[in-house]
Amino acid sequence: MGKKAEIKRLREKVKRLKRALVAAADHTHVVAPLAPKGGFPDLPVIEGVQFSAIEAGIKYQGRLDVMLAEMAPGTSIAGVFTRSSTRAAPVLDCQDKIGSNANEKAAFVVNAGNANAFTGSNGLDTVTAITSAVAKRLNMPENRVYSASTGVIGELLPHDRITNKLDELAAGLSPEKIQPAANAIRTTDTFAKGAGATVKVDGKPVHIAGIAKGSGMIAPDMATMLVFIFTDAKIDQPVLQDMLTDLTGQTLNNITVDSDTSTSDTLLLAATGASGVDIDAGNSAFTQALHDVMLDLAQQVVRDGEGATKFVTVKVTGALSDSEAKTHALSVANSPLVKTAVAGEDPNWGRVVMAIGKSGASADRDLLSISFGDVLVAEKGWVSPDYREEDGADYMKGDDLSISVDLGLGDGKASVWTCDLTHAYIQINADYRS
Amino acid sequence: MGKKAEIKRLREKVKRLKRALVAAADHTHVVAPLAPKGGFPDLPVIEGVQFSAIEAGIKYQGRLDVMLAEMAPGTSIAGVFTRSSTRAAPVLDCQDKIGSNANEKAAFVVNAGNANAFTGSNGLDTVTAITSAVAKRLNMPENRVYSASTGVIGELLPHDRITNKLDELAAGLSPEKIQPAANAIRTTDTFAKGAGATVKVDGKPVHIAGIAKGSGMIAPDMATMLVFIFTDAKIDQPVLQDMLTDLTGQTLNNITVDSDTSTSDTLLLAATGASGVDIDAGNSAFTQALHDVMLDLAQQVVRDGEGATKFVTVKVTGALSDSEAKTHALSVANSPLVKTAVAGEDPNWGRVVMAIGKSGASADRDLLSISFGDVLVAEKGWVSPDYREEDGADYMKGDDLSISVDLGLGDGKASVWTCDLTHAYIQINADYRS
Repeated sequence: MGKKAEIKRLREKVKRLKRALVAAADHTHVVAPLAPKGGFPDLPVIEGVQFSAIEAGIKYQGRLDVMLAEMAPGTSIAGVFTRSSTRAAPVLDCQDKIGSNANEKAAFVVNAGNANAFTGSNGLDTVTAITSAVAKRLNMPENRVYSASTGVIGELLPHDRITNKLDELAAGLSPEKIQPAANAIRTTDTFAKGAGATVKVDGKPVHIAGIAKGSGMIAPDMATMLVFIFTDAKIDQPVLQDMLTDLTGQTLNNITVDSDTSTSDTLLLAATGASGVDIDAGNSAFTQALHDVMLDLAQQVVRDGEGATKFVTVKVTGALSDSEAKTHALSVANSPLVKTAVAGEDPNWGRVVMAIGKSGASADRDLLSISFGDVLVAEKGWVSPDYREEDGADYMKGDDLSISVDLGLGDGKASVWTCDLTHAYIQINADYRS
Repeated sequence: MGKKAEIKRLREKVKRLKRALVAAADHTHVVAPLAPKGGFPDLPVIEGVQFSAIEAGIKYQGRLDVMLAEMAPGTSIAGVFTRSSTRAAPVLDCQDKIGSNANEKAAFVVNAGNANAFTGSNGLDTVTAITSAVAKRLNMPENRVYSASTGVIGELLPHDRITNKLDELAAGLSPEKIQPAANAIRTTDTFAKGAGATVKVDGKPVHIAGIAKGSGMIAPDMATMLVFIFTDAKIDQPVLQDMLTDLTGQTLNNITVDSDTSTSDTLLLAATGASGVDIDAGNSAFTQALHDVMLDLAQQVVRDGEGATKFVTVKVTGALSDSEAKTHALSVANSPLVKTAVAGEDPNWGRVVMAIGKSGASADRDLLSISFGDVLVAEKGWVSPDYREEDGADYMKGDDLSISVDLGLGDGKASVWTCDLTHAYIQINADYRS
């Protein structure tokens, strides 16, 4: 290697090691290194939705921590929720309310700082106190008010801090305030997450705007994933629900930071119909746009993954079915050994083989091919004759990596998105008590 | 500054930064903090078995890296192996040989430094080269020679380094050399692992001695890396196999370090019959002694878990079945959030609730009770009225912890053993490449 190249390599290495040390020493008050450049995006205004955000002091002081979204009559609402058997009270309440009368107004009320989870029967009382107060103040039936809470668990949510401020919340409602809303729902997130799209259907524009929070798939201690998406499309609730469930399986359910699942994960999609454009189940332009918004939000959650320094796409092809491909891809994406190898910029394909082997889905060792980016590393069960370790090591220095596995068995395929496992993840979550 | 000086400066800087990172998680060249006090135990001599260990330079220099065990004619051999679909060649070969003619002599030949895994069709050729050479040298059929390999994967095992030294290996055979054998099979292990028992059956002593290696890529199916157990009991192969399979489900398959599963996991049990004591399926004294040896070895593997500073027993009771209890216990034991909380001495019962919720087995949030040691933390879905955070925090300072969950649903129960997830695990596995 020439001296110039050596200097460049060493400089990069110094930078990387410094980053690791900084991450190990201090994780607070910095935006994640993988955050999208350019900050919060310009999102289209969704007719029929107004937002408000306030400082209620639930746990944090001096920051927005409660958001309200009010939807006009005629809004269809669909939802997808955590499958945890220890779901928090707000999740159980939301699930009950999906399918309520679309002719009425509706609202989402969300707080950060307290998850109202594992609070026994008090949990549901708190949800009822909040949703009934919002329903009364905004003049809508209680079963049209959906709530979500994230933050500490096992502590009673001081709901009066929300209900005492409903006038302020209502007074602040505006179609323009989606960014403050995105800020209000953050907990350990290092940046507010938003994504939007405008798509023409029959020559008329239809708009989609979504916000999300989350920096681990993890629940307690404030890292739940919450996603709220709004569109002015006109869609019947059952069609909307099917669309959301289906797209979640390709986007928000295909990400993993640490394999842990929150007790509070909530995804709500509201279609106000204000654009006057009817969307039916087969509308591919709208479905694709919604898919892209959901994928964008999903990937932003991974990019804000606790301690993440590398964004990784795991692609599996050639599986017996799409579902087997996803099992393999998640096994690779969740493997601590694969994730630490990525953190160390180590093209350790052996660990990928291991993760495929343990997944439980079908694989034949001697048909496996593995690539890091465009670098073919292994084929037919052994290292590729053209593979040079330097090429793999070089590729792994990037921030945005792909690991591809072809099983050579069938047509099943899946993509999953994840991040590396670093010292900073341990630092954030071990919380070394003093 | 000249280019040469700049390179020198940067190299020093890299060295310094690496040292700082290592200091942040100092794990090198020290025996694991959880290693059993008192070093390698005094193991009973097993009549009918001889051991030998040599330095073959497979990968490491200046240390034992190949071990041979030779068993007398009449030895029954049982085995349990990884269920990975990308199993290494030696594993496939061993599986084929289980059940071979017990009237012949038998041998185990094991190397460290190269796993002979993911080496395509070369893998089996290498196994055959080794096992046929051992068979010839020791005068036994090839199908009575079992091999195991651990270490780097994807590289051809230089088998001549073993076969060229068979005279030295054979010359060294002795009934006393089980400790050198335990040393020869180590890879990243920080201490050699052994356990033994002597039990009286019909007034006559029967002996058991076992050795193990493993400290990462440890999870059920099987949790072991390599385990070899020897006894002078007289047991028919089918009975021995049933006993081994059954006990593995209660011991070596109930440990997890990082949820990753090796492609090479191998457990072999040889019963020489030399004690003349017949053991049948219902012999509880022998079964209990074998169980205890296996559990001891399993727990030693966890105590040597990469980066481990805390040993954790996860006990689940009150599940709908034993199998559901094990699913819950493994979900808790594998959760990165639970494991980092333990590392941080944080009595974070919320994360235990989360792990129970995501496990997929049945649970009712409002029936859950959780204890850390004797400290009752949560009951009936909420924090216990008597719980004081100081008590939980105090308990978590210990090295040897238990997390107990009662589900309140039925009689199913299971125990699983694991360790914490620390900076040192990241350090060891991220391997900041140079």
